[in-house]
Amino acid sequence: MIDPILHEDPRSGNCYKIKLTAALLGMPLTIQRYDILAGETRTPEFLTRVNANGRIPVLQIGDRFLPESNAACYYLATGSALIPGERFDHADMLRWMFFEQNSHEPNIATLRFWLHFIGEAQLSQEQEAQTMAKRIAGCNALTLMDRHLQVHDWFVGTSVTLADIALSAYTHVASDGGFDLGDYPAVQAWLARVARLPGYVAMA
Amino acid sequence: MIDPILHEDPRSGNCYKIKLTAALLGMPLTIQRYDILAGETRTPEFLTRVNANGRIPVLQIGDRFLPESNAACYYLATGSALIPGERFDHADMLRWMFFEQNSHEPNIATLRFWLHFIGEAQLSQEQEAQTMAKRIAGCNALTLMDRHLQVHDWFVGTSVTLADIALSAYTHVASDGGFDLGDYPAVQAWLARVARLPGYVAMA
Repeated sequence: MIDPILHEDPRSGNCYKIKLTAALLGMPLTIQRYDILAGETRTPEFLTRVNANGRIPVLQIGDRFLPESNAACYYLATGSALIPGERFDHADMLRWMFFEQNSHEPNIATLRFWLHFIGEAQLSQEQEAQTMAKRIAGCNALTLMDRHLQVHDWFVGTSVTLADIALSAYTHVASDGGFDLGDYPAVQAWLARVARLPGYVAMA
Repeated sequence: MIDPILHEDPRSGNCYKIKLTAALLGMPLTIQRYDILAGETRTPEFLTRVNANGRIPVLQIGDRFLPESNAACYYLATGSALIPGERFDHADMLRWMFFEQNSHEPNIATLRFWLHFIGEAQLSQEQEAQTMAKRIAGCNALTLMDRHLQVHDWFVGTSVTLADIALSAYTHVASDGGFDLGDYPAVQAWLARVARLPGYVAMA
């Protein structure tokens, strides 16, 4: 069987989630790199062949293409201990992964992209107008996570699941988006637990 | 066994997804209603007991609480034909559900809430500043869906899955957010297929 191919930009936390999942599972991945800032995921070839959405990551399995980082992590981890078997816990893991895509990534990852890669001085008026709302919503997401982690070591059950992988990816680089993790000590302790997992790899 | 309890506001498409899933499965649900506009999901009791996030829907199973609409649908549909058994198709269903929470709901549901329930004249400056970006992103999501549905009857495989339920909920009321579904004929044909499913219930 051919290894799965990850179409990615190493600066993206969404791409990193998939590499971390594969690393924790000891699973080989072939990497195909693109520079999103240079528009390499907006070429006609990429849009036709890889993802009509023009976004990475995309996980390629044979001749099938799977966009959406959390879905790609799920595909790789199917049948492993990173996905709880118990019905409620399984759904509760997905709950945190949907929370990540709806309440965390659009705020924390977007501010990181704007401030760290585009630069504050280069933001459009429209982006500037959204900065405060994203700052507040990002802090709310981190506060909710911190409260949960004050009484739990992991998001679901008693060991690492895909919920921890999905949420840690952009949280551990949230300072790039102007968030101060010092305000969230339980989050910091959990990030240290994630970084000590056997097989852990750091972001590029 | 006690029926699952859905904590909900009937105006919310996210709540409707769960009721539609239960209806298609012929599964009873006990409904507990809240008025989000009256702040009933921000009371100390709700925040302590039901969801620290102050949001609905929340699915209650015994004494456990499951926020996030798509996770609640997944819990109810576990083991049913609404979730594909094949590994790639399963992940591909989740792919569309993550897309819904990241690229569709924050644009289409939010504009519906702002224009239909708050009212254009009552929007804050911050909300007004985001309207155009959400309009464009919402149209992009509908265009991507329409292209897929031009060559597929359902989002994954050859029958309805949770991907269709998740995506149809806010799509079928997108006109409340100022979107013209006449621009997306394949989406309209798919919505008609969803509405003809045995057990289908309309939104309140």
